[in-house]
Amino acid sequence: MELLNSTLKQIEPLYEDSVKEAVKRLDNLAKPIGSLGYLEDIASKMAGITGKVHNEIKKKNIIIMCADNGVVEEGVSACPQYITAILTNNATKGIMGVSVLSNFAKSDTTVVDIGVKADFNDLKIINKKIDYGTNNMLKGPAMTREQAIKAIETGIEIVDNLVKEGYDLLGTGELGIGNTTTSAAILSVLSDIDSDIIVGKGAGLTLEQYENKKRVVKKSIEVNKPDKDDVIDVISKVGGFDIAGLCGCFLGAAKNRVPIVIDGFISSAAALCAYKLNPISRDYMFPSHLSAEPGAVYMMKELNLEPMLNLKMRLGEGSGCPLAFNIIEAALEIINKMGTFEDAMINSDFLVDIR
Amino acid sequence: MELLNSTLKQIEPLYEDSVKEAVKRLDNLAKPIGSLGYLEDIASKMAGITGKVHNEIKKKNIIIMCADNGVVEEGVSACPQYITAILTNNATKGIMGVSVLSNFAKSDTTVVDIGVKADFNDLKIINKKIDYGTNNMLKGPAMTREQAIKAIETGIEIVDNLVKEGYDLLGTGELGIGNTTTSAAILSVLSDIDSDIIVGKGAGLTLEQYENKKRVVKKSIEVNKPDKDDVIDVISKVGGFDIAGLCGCFLGAAKNRVPIVIDGFISSAAALCAYKLNPISRDYMFPSHLSAEPGAVYMMKELNLEPMLNLKMRLGEGSGCPLAFNIIEAALEIINKMGTFEDAMINSDFLVDIR
Repeated sequence: MELLNSTLKQIEPLYEDSVKEAVKRLDNLAKPIGSLGYLEDIASKMAGITGKVHNEIKKKNIIIMCADNGVVEEGVSACPQYITAILTNNATKGIMGVSVLSNFAKSDTTVVDIGVKADFNDLKIINKKIDYGTNNMLKGPAMTREQAIKAIETGIEIVDNLVKEGYDLLGTGELGIGNTTTSAAILSVLSDIDSDIIVGKGAGLTLEQYENKKRVVKKSIEVNKPDKDDVIDVISKVGGFDIAGLCGCFLGAAKNRVPIVIDGFISSAAALCAYKLNPISRDYMFPSHLSAEPGAVYMMKELNLEPMLNLKMRLGEGSGCPLAFNIIEAALEIINKMGTFEDAMINSDFLVDIR
Repeated sequence: MELLNSTLKQIEPLYEDSVKEAVKRLDNLAKPIGSLGYLEDIASKMAGITGKVHNEIKKKNIIIMCADNGVVEEGVSACPQYITAILTNNATKGIMGVSVLSNFAKSDTTVVDIGVKADFNDLKIINKKIDYGTNNMLKGPAMTREQAIKAIETGIEIVDNLVKEGYDLLGTGELGIGNTTTSAAILSVLSDIDSDIIVGKGAGLTLEQYENKKRVVKKSIEVNKPDKDDVIDVISKVGGFDIAGLCGCFLGAAKNRVPIVIDGFISSAAALCAYKLNPISRDYMFPSHLSAEPGAVYMMKELNLEPMLNLKMRLGEGSGCPLAFNIIEAALEIINKMGTFEDAMINSDFLVDIR
């Protein structure tokens, strides 16, 4: 609890002077004011994060939190639970969606076993296991309050270490069968939106399974009665270790003044938890794509963030992050390398003849 | 007219067998079917274009058509007309928005003077001038029918040459004060949508100037009575050399079976013209971002295409293309490098213990 508390206290707002300075430079670039849209917003937000108008990304990393969810025994997923373990194992082999896209974006990945129901002998998987999966939230809290805090603090520690290693742009991903179910429950509680509207078909449910998933989410909330004003209570009762861990990553990034990208539905559930724990943490978040999960729109509304990409993706894993990394880096190129109005006029004697 | 006619005849549909083969491979990759959304659509469309399931981009180029518009004398733009010439000159200097983003994406650019009201002594600007700007469309046709055809054929030739040079992914951009006005007029005529809904504030008009622009577009259509079933008539009466040239680029790309990216509002007006001349040409188009111009949504509806990016950009120049290039290349990485379900299961003996 100490690390979480100190982290929450150490999160500070953007450097407003740097934001203003960046906006001033952007407005002076040879283009109609604001015409590069979000690219300009990204560049000025980055200035507010680092305190410098000109920024360059040196090292990128996508943190993939892997965990199992007890609620899977209620049939909320089209996949059997052991798929989480198989995916976690594959995540270090370069063949998964997030791995391929991460390599393409020249990013590294950090695979964390924060609660998979299996043991691994792959040393590239960081063992931070809280437990072998959560309990079935339909029957009671998914985890203890202590476990939720430990999982959040694990995320903070992972980020603290990555920042020490020089990573200056982070992404968030996850692997965990059943985690659209927990994410939907968290969003419903924290936003007061009927869970039936939020619950999606995940990775390919039949209509019957879908109806069951909706019932399970609603019932889990009824059974546990999470206190929406106590985020730790919400996470521990209807969340997962992956979401808790990623929540810690968002807080850790904000504390360390490092930009962090939100991937899809699950990642944004974690972002929402971080935001509710400390609203300033949102200033360090960059949404990537609008997930095809029906709840994704509400997630973005709650966070008051608008994603850059519309690719109808719903894979998770952190697969949207590498694509967003490219856009963030493009935004930095703009503020660093575009000419000003002055630059643009310098050579206007080129004109042999303006008729 | 010969080149245009032969081009229209040579455009052929996607190779459906290759699309199917690509979809089969994508469905066999270790992920829920369709979960990579548009990335999968892009990969299979690319297969249909080239006839190969596995594709790799070797050389990228953004064609920037530069031209002036006579209608600018009606006060439809916040910028004076000579800015087109200054921008055209700067387009080879690496300091403009599109240049910076193109360099970042390791793309080349081709700057074409297809009708700027100035002469250039920069040999990097390809001189294909049809005329020193168009006529004022409020007073009559912007150009002759012959000029419209010549401009379209110029675009086809440019693409023919780039393809010969080995470029296998193209982008479309433009520079031309007043070209949101001509684009709005073209869209209104071809879609039968009231021009008042389509006309936007371009590069920063006052409310009064905006009202004037709406009036000018509506009146230009009334004065010229373009025949919506004759695209050449529409382009010559209320279009511009830049739009005509880009229309040719889209047709040329389809003829050469090379993918081509749509940028913003003006570029999509040209894409719409190409689509109306030969609907199959759309199969070779990839939309990039949804421009902040109010007409952009209607443009995409007419084309039945959905953009990948939502960045509220409205710079034009082709600035959205380099960002889309990255997404297209990411999609190719997915189909080329992601593991299949078989690959994913191979190492599942890793599990020390699935409890």
